[in-house]
Amino acid sequence: MTGWLAIAGLGPGDDRLVTPEVQAVLAEATDVVGYIPYVARIAPREGLALHPSDNRVELDRARAALEMAAAGHRVVIVSSGDPGVFAMASAVFEALEGRLDWQALDIRVLPGITAMLAAAAAAGAPLGHDFCCINLSDNLKPWEVIETRLRHAARADFAMAFYNPRSASRPEGFAKALATLLQECGPDRLITFARAVSTPDQHLTTVTLGEATPEMADMRTVVILGNSATHRVGRWVYSPRSVR
Amino acid sequence: MTGWLAIAGLGPGDDRLVTPEVQAVLAEATDVVGYIPYVARIAPREGLALHPSDNRVELDRARAALEMAAAGHRVVIVSSGDPGVFAMASAVFEALEGRLDWQALDIRVLPGITAMLAAAAAAGAPLGHDFCCINLSDNLKPWEVIETRLRHAARADFAMAFYNPRSASRPEGFAKALATLLQECGPDRLITFARAVSTPDQHLTTVTLGEATPEMADMRTVVILGNSATHRVGRWVYSPRSVR
Repeated sequence: MTGWLAIAGLGPGDDRLVTPEVQAVLAEATDVVGYIPYVARIAPREGLALHPSDNRVELDRARAALEMAAAGHRVVIVSSGDPGVFAMASAVFEALEGRLDWQALDIRVLPGITAMLAAAAAAGAPLGHDFCCINLSDNLKPWEVIETRLRHAARADFAMAFYNPRSASRPEGFAKALATLLQECGPDRLITFARAVSTPDQHLTTVTLGEATPEMADMRTVVILGNSATHRVGRWVYSPRSVR
Repeated sequence: MTGWLAIAGLGPGDDRLVTPEVQAVLAEATDVVGYIPYVARIAPREGLALHPSDNRVELDRARAALEMAAAGHRVVIVSSGDPGVFAMASAVFEALEGRLDWQALDIRVLPGITAMLAAAAAAGAPLGHDFCCINLSDNLKPWEVIETRLRHAARADFAMAFYNPRSASRPEGFAKALATLLQECGPDRLITFARAVSTPDQHLTTVTLGEATPEMADMRTVVILGNSATHRVGRWVYSPRSVR
């Protein structure tokens, strides 16, 4: 038996957003590895071992998956959204550093619907013009880097999608981000809080930066800030295609 | 019969990247509207009218689709990739301006795998850290805006995904963009040219900015520039999760 490793994106939550490509590798897998709530989305079946693990052990999880693939297992690491956007793909490639044996394995990354695309679709088209995508967690980078990126993004007039805006362990970061954005973009800029998109708990709110408060976001929220031309039409928010 | 309009993303080309949600609306549709090569991907069937149209008529196409939905048709506008990323969703919302009758319609945006996610997955994980996404076509914005965005993005140390890098009618823009990026990021920065991702014509090349030439891209190419930490491991390219 020849082992392989697929790093697959499950999309934001709704099973109708899981691609047939990902469904197909899951059907062939002997082992599924991932963060507890993502592995919980996989239906158990005969011949499939589920390996849920806790958050913040990404490198250990990647190495365990690579070990199993090297031993001949057919392994899928599941990520929410897209595995290449603030998810497991980078951790796997990091685990390959200096390991020529693992680098020879059959490893594939299978894209998924990342949260900002589902959130934008539910809101209208706020990412319909140039945009950027920033992870607001300062677990893996200093806050000064985030701050600098926010200022450049504002001056470039990018729409912005923010992942991991706020957690119990970092309650103050998002408040600082909002203050920076208010200073750079002014109080009238539209901001959309999209919580648990595509799940039964989905909740969307669009307000102005002047009205936004840190409590509007939690770790299940993706936040989308418009650019200077983003506005409402009917019940939607969108960014025009043109800049005049 | 109650009409509706779905603006659906077909992904980058491979049918295994079309979500079940999009497949389901296509199965219910009476009319499919879109740019000729995207409509060509839809299998004809009894009761389904196909309405292919040329490029650069996005607003006319959006209005035609809204007219049909208002008349009770079940209409799907198909976009390549994700409809909210440089595709038809913004054009539809633009067409709704001032039209309260159309704003009352059942309109949904259905996300898809946008080209940069499929390209990043094929290359490894170059978008595994903060990044931005820029349409390099200057059909709808002045070149100065693009230039300013490139410089801010470089100074923010974003990885960058570029859509529409080059066309026969605008051969010089991408050369200017490469010159700006070379100046800002230096000759060693990695850049990946991903052509026709997920199709039988898929071709990926990663070179340094110093080696990159404008001819490496055409309109079927998505270009991904790494950030300052992006590097190769084995046959892949990835951006580490951490900034030290």
